[in-house]
Amino acid sequence: MKKISLLGATGSIGTQTLDVIRLHPESFQLAAMSIGKNLDLGLKIIEEFQPKLVAVLTKENGTYLQQQVSGNIKIVYGMEGLIEVAAYYESHVLVNAVLGSVGLAPTLAAIKEKKNIAIANKETLVTAGHLIMEQAQKYNVSILPVDSEHSAIFQCLQGENPKELARIILTASGGSFRDKTRSELVHVTKEDALKHPNWSMGAKITIDSATMMNKGLEVIEAYWLFGLPYEKIDVILHKESVIHSMIEMVDTSVIAHLGTPDMKIPIQYALTYPSRLELKETKRLNLIEMGTLHFSEANFERYRCLKYAYEAGKTGGTLPTVLNAANEEAVAAFLNDFIGFLEIENLIEKAMDRHQLVQFPSLEEISEIDVETRRYVQSLIK
Amino acid sequence: MKKISLLGATGSIGTQTLDVIRLHPESFQLAAMSIGKNLDLGLKIIEEFQPKLVAVLTKENGTYLQQQVSGNIKIVYGMEGLIEVAAYYESHVLVNAVLGSVGLAPTLAAIKEKKNIAIANKETLVTAGHLIMEQAQKYNVSILPVDSEHSAIFQCLQGENPKELARIILTASGGSFRDKTRSELVHVTKEDALKHPNWSMGAKITIDSATMMNKGLEVIEAYWLFGLPYEKIDVILHKESVIHSMIEMVDTSVIAHLGTPDMKIPIQYALTYPSRLELKETKRLNLIEMGTLHFSEANFERYRCLKYAYEAGKTGGTLPTVLNAANEEAVAAFLNDFIGFLEIENLIEKAMDRHQLVQFPSLEEISEIDVETRRYVQSLIK
Repeated sequence: MKKISLLGATGSIGTQTLDVIRLHPESFQLAAMSIGKNLDLGLKIIEEFQPKLVAVLTKENGTYLQQQVSGNIKIVYGMEGLIEVAAYYESHVLVNAVLGSVGLAPTLAAIKEKKNIAIANKETLVTAGHLIMEQAQKYNVSILPVDSEHSAIFQCLQGENPKELARIILTASGGSFRDKTRSELVHVTKEDALKHPNWSMGAKITIDSATMMNKGLEVIEAYWLFGLPYEKIDVILHKESVIHSMIEMVDTSVIAHLGTPDMKIPIQYALTYPSRLELKETKRLNLIEMGTLHFSEANFERYRCLKYAYEAGKTGGTLPTVLNAANEEAVAAFLNDFIGFLEIENLIEKAMDRHQLVQFPSLEEISEIDVETRRYVQSLIK
Repeated sequence: MKKISLLGATGSIGTQTLDVIRLHPESFQLAAMSIGKNLDLGLKIIEEFQPKLVAVLTKENGTYLQQQVSGNIKIVYGMEGLIEVAAYYESHVLVNAVLGSVGLAPTLAAIKEKKNIAIANKETLVTAGHLIMEQAQKYNVSILPVDSEHSAIFQCLQGENPKELARIILTASGGSFRDKTRSELVHVTKEDALKHPNWSMGAKITIDSATMMNKGLEVIEAYWLFGLPYEKIDVILHKESVIHSMIEMVDTSVIAHLGTPDMKIPIQYALTYPSRLELKETKRLNLIEMGTLHFSEANFERYRCLKYAYEAGKTGGTLPTVLNAANEEAVAAFLNDFIGFLEIENLIEKAMDRHQLVQFPSLEEISEIDVETRRYVQSLIK
């Protein structure tokens, strides 16, 4: 029985993680979780899965929840609560599925308690990859990717010698606006942007997919997860998202992971690794039905966020934190109708341009620069 | 230094095996080889690679060759010669790249001397898979596929638990006539048939590719190599031959091997397994240049040879031997302009229909039925 701590249980990845746990009650158990604003869903999850520890946002949320739940459940709150859930002594693995940089400190805490980390929180690796990977190595902990792309690469790498890896090829759907030119992007709305062609995901990630920042952040994640230089991490447009990503070996062999667009597949793999379990509820891939797979270039001029991400990754230090914080603020502003779609990348560019780089930043420095960048981007919006 | 015995050095796979050896003189050495009718090419190979043992077809060939070569080379001939090369004491691996059922006895001899077998000779597994796999297990010998499809599956399976394998998906280009209907096939010529769209191969295999018998034989090989029932071995048409084959795991994950149509990739992998070496002379796969990959159904009515192969495989015993022998004779007759293209499958069907099955045949029984089937098919042609 694998016991699981789940950060972000009510989100998109969180609820799908619960689906996987529900499918395999003989293998998995929810030991601890955190929830956010959606207390109603949180309550339902508590009733069904009976975790022993639940973290909420505020003390008030905690008091409210305590009155509603039956059974012996400990309720904690705030960042301390998140850390307590992440490092819960009974858990074998932490599924980090919160959004944003809030996932960073709990992940480091879980690593120190020797929990393996199933990571769906991009910001953790993007802003503090150097700290996470260093600590993971120190405590001999596996960082198991949950993103379909990184899970694909991770799966393809099984049985291969990483020294014989020549290249990683991340596939990108191109998001909701892949068939639009840049001039057509000026007046697109958030409603247009939220219609992702392949995957059903949260709003922020769907916008990141349309700007290709999602892929840019994945490039930086791949750098940390697989230890390849940026020159050997490529992005290719593949609008069907059937090939989830690929590796190229030194003998030119390319190994690819293909599947349906169901996040339960990578989530489950992170939980069952290095084994696999049946996943009956998922449709099997039918290439005959698909008929055709398309590939094209992920152009840096068309997708400027991708260019900024490579720049931030190659420069390193605090620049990925600036990239990520500026992007989060800009996307929030777009989702609130404060700015247009193309303004997202302009704000990111401005924030990166003015930044004074710190190499090898500490957790505190990352946090300061995160806050400071958000403040700066907000000042540009208002 | 890995020392290699190579059966069929002057053929298509043979010369490409020599290319691989030539690319890595620090890793590989040709210790022994067999050649067929092409004595001139054989002489050139001897001059370049200086093998210690060479098998030729006849005593006369041997005497001729002995007069031509310089250096200390032992020359042997006939089936005994082939066996001596296959089991040569200095060799670590046998590359079996002869055509037809002549490869069977030497392979068994090499297994008994604990040589790993890099197998490019389809007939060996098709007609005597039960003997080969039993002996390989007994002597703890690896059977390393050289076919691009089986090598693809073998590579995808690295790091996976075979018990978690749900399905094998062999890709088929469809061969030179894939865009023709059955009625258009009545009057096609051998010249048309020999124009394979993707791969440069020998004449016999190119015809087998056009009839899809090649894929049928590969289905039977896959059955023996990977131990899956025929219900879990699928064939899918994929005209670009970029995906060389795939495996589907129990969690619906599909792992695929992709590459350029260069047989040096699977040949080298069989020699370097479980490692990989750089393969500089090969073009890297460029999916952006390809643009599109297509998939469609491999219809049993369109490709009757595929249907016959599944039938022969599922029935087992001596029926695959009949399938293979009838096909070899029919293809030879087609290449000699004795019969039309569609007559190939008719001859195979007739030979299979009249056959009295022997389950678990010995090497002798396989050999007898091989000869007897050929005689029968020849009697139908003349």
